[in-house]
Amino acid sequence: MESGLHTDLYQLTMAAGYWKYGMNGRACFELFTRRLPKDRGYLIAAGLEQVIEYLEGVRFSEEDVAYLRTLKPFQKVDEGYFDYLRKFRFTGDLWAVPEGTVVFADEPILRIVAPLIEAQVVETYILSVINFQTLIATKAARVVNAAQLDGKKRRVIEFGTRRAHGPAAGYTAARAAYIGGCDGTSNVAAGKRWGIPVFGTAAHAWTLACSSEQEAFERYYALYPETCTLLIDTYDVISGAKNAVKVGKGVLGVRIDSGDLAEQARQVREILDAAGMHATRIVLSGDLNEYLVAGMVKAGVPVDDFGVGTDLVVSRDAPALGGVYKLVEREGKDGQKIYTAKFSPGKVTLPGAKQIFRQQENGKFVGDILGLAFEEYDGTSKLLEQFIKDGECCRKYSLEEARERAKDQLEALPEEYKQLESPARYPVEPSKQIIQLLEQLKV
Amino acid sequence: MESGLHTDLYQLTMAAGYWKYGMNGRACFELFTRRLPKDRGYLIAAGLEQVIEYLEGVRFSEEDVAYLRTLKPFQKVDEGYFDYLRKFRFTGDLWAVPEGTVVFADEPILRIVAPLIEAQVVETYILSVINFQTLIATKAARVVNAAQLDGKKRRVIEFGTRRAHGPAAGYTAARAAYIGGCDGTSNVAAGKRWGIPVFGTAAHAWTLACSSEQEAFERYYALYPETCTLLIDTYDVISGAKNAVKVGKGVLGVRIDSGDLAEQARQVREILDAAGMHATRIVLSGDLNEYLVAGMVKAGVPVDDFGVGTDLVVSRDAPALGGVYKLVEREGKDGQKIYTAKFSPGKVTLPGAKQIFRQQENGKFVGDILGLAFEEYDGTSKLLEQFIKDGECCRKYSLEEARERAKDQLEALPEEYKQLESPARYPVEPSKQIIQLLEQLKV
Repeated sequence: MESGLHTDLYQLTMAAGYWKYGMNGRACFELFTRRLPKDRGYLIAAGLEQVIEYLEGVRFSEEDVAYLRTLKPFQKVDEGYFDYLRKFRFTGDLWAVPEGTVVFADEPILRIVAPLIEAQVVETYILSVINFQTLIATKAARVVNAAQLDGKKRRVIEFGTRRAHGPAAGYTAARAAYIGGCDGTSNVAAGKRWGIPVFGTAAHAWTLACSSEQEAFERYYALYPETCTLLIDTYDVISGAKNAVKVGKGVLGVRIDSGDLAEQARQVREILDAAGMHATRIVLSGDLNEYLVAGMVKAGVPVDDFGVGTDLVVSRDAPALGGVYKLVEREGKDGQKIYTAKFSPGKVTLPGAKQIFRQQENGKFVGDILGLAFEEYDGTSKLLEQFIKDGECCRKYSLEEARERAKDQLEALPEEYKQLESPARYPVEPSKQIIQLLEQLKV
Repeated sequence: MESGLHTDLYQLTMAAGYWKYGMNGRACFELFTRRLPKDRGYLIAAGLEQVIEYLEGVRFSEEDVAYLRTLKPFQKVDEGYFDYLRKFRFTGDLWAVPEGTVVFADEPILRIVAPLIEAQVVETYILSVINFQTLIATKAARVVNAAQLDGKKRRVIEFGTRRAHGPAAGYTAARAAYIGGCDGTSNVAAGKRWGIPVFGTAAHAWTLACSSEQEAFERYYALYPETCTLLIDTYDVISGAKNAVKVGKGVLGVRIDSGDLAEQARQVREILDAAGMHATRIVLSGDLNEYLVAGMVKAGVPVDDFGVGTDLVVSRDAPALGGVYKLVEREGKDGQKIYTAKFSPGKVTLPGAKQIFRQQENGKFVGDILGLAFEEYDGTSKLLEQFIKDGECCRKYSLEEARERAKDQLEALPEEYKQLESPARYPVEPSKQIIQLLEQLKV
């Protein structure tokens, strides 16, 4: 259960207005991004599960209400509004693209249809969840794509909690990164909560806490004979690699975390191979991102696993997704449908509850039609599906499903949209009906 | 109470090693950054309160332990280790610079002295808290500095939860931004939890949900006669401003959220002034940051309040702080002190528990000495203070204190270090004793 206070103040002052003026007909809001971040040709939708949990559990406690009543704006607000908040439940519907779906600018990632107050109050939290997880799932997909540019499977492990925007961001980043294609995470809590495979090596502190590097390696191997990856750069990578060789062929992997990773990986691979340790994996980490990973893969650097931290969990080159949540239609006083659009400069929104109609040819995505929800286009698949009906979740799914979907969809997405830099723009066309509606509203 | 699983797997595998080999003497770790992010001349330390809460409350539940026992690496680990985790408590000491302190690269923001296992297990969570809140407090200080470049007080309100890295990041970003000098936040939960002033205006949805902009404005004003800020750009800013004038002189403020903010602010100010509404504030928002804010202030744009969201809560131009947590000394088997340092390329660490000795002249900071904790330098102030002793918090403080400290310290910091771009490098010198120690360890 999450407090309804995890929102912007204006949601609650507007809600008081809706309440006072009886403006609580059903309203339809859609969440979408106006443009993709720099160098992004697609997004991987993520975070829906946390949105569903929130919508099912959001409440205002007596304490929450008591706090609101201390605030200046609420001094003249009727007690009836606070009673309303005390009984607040989300009773509406949620439609969304399933997690792991590839989406583009202007396409609704989710749609809320609910009494206006409910739909308004939940905006901030929902945006925060979807913006962040979608950002990270997308970044992860880019890194994983880079790691396998030559068609060879290399693992990418998310290592970034320590640099995430707080522990909770690290926890959910692990989830989103897994959807985006990472093979696992170092975050144990995320492993427990979502069944994500957890990975770990050792830190420099382990080596420093032992009397020598050799002792550190021997002890770690004795404890973890099957899963032991040794960190070999505490003092010097070459002598570290030689010390790892002394431990023997059972060593699962060695990690290099500093210096010229590519050059050192080559030297270390030679040392390991010369000792017959062909199966010992080389793990590289240390401020990696999709660009550096792609460079190493193209250069043929001998690497089996990438540990990617900071750049992945903060999506460093594009650290925010600008998702917005806009009213697209509402019910008037007498129940008629009123379409709405915003005409602020550069921020025009398309009216009406929408559906994404995706066209495929030979198993590849070729273009989307952004139509009204009630339109039909033969031979297309509709991406938005219902997940909550009358406040209750009506469709369950697993994280593995979401990850598989992302994988399948990325395979169906042509290469030009997956370029790491300056990708092509995937065609998304509004339907004629939407354009007509917009023209009518402009008048 | 927070689960101990909010950490990297390797902390728990190393901990099992420490446990097995009896390596649990007191260890001292320090948290610091190796370099400041791009264009940062200083950092505002933040997040300590959450670190203290975590250290006092971190536990491993029976469920946590049961999960760990399912993981492959732990299959051969003695049951005694899991018993240890079941009883796990942080029993050590915490020293830190108080929140709001100005710090620089290489300077310890905090120091943990505890049995090695405890000090190791808490690393990831602590880093994540301090890295994030310090990043945001610093960014906020830059924006606030920019907003008042001409010496005139203008308010900066944090509006960014929807673009933060998840709802929890938005919540703590509000706290950190307040320490850094913001006047308040739109995040209601943060207002309730920490007593931060909360602010809000209205959203486009309010206007779209009414039958006309004029009706929207009249209704909002009727409800909030003392605190009403109208959003005037839903259709057209000029007609929006004229509609606000019709509402009357009681309107506290108008907000512009799109288009050419500077030009529109000038036009709107004229319209308001012509109507005698000199007291009505102009609030600007929409993808603002310290650079844009400084530009508007320098250009004399009539603006009273800045609402800053995305760029502030993700620190967009420098979205991660690279704080690290390093073992600097430990107790050997027979109780002797062993200094430690890491010599990885580009990642050398200074040995020994340290203290920051700050030198001031005429009320201005002139340079810091990074000395060993037991050193003494006349006429300097020692920045690290004790906050936890034997696992219990021994010093309480308020958020207001932290915010005041940041304000005072920024006033004492000479201008050249506060430049928004290419600031000067503040002098931080390691003491002779530390340099000697490092040389001895190199041998």
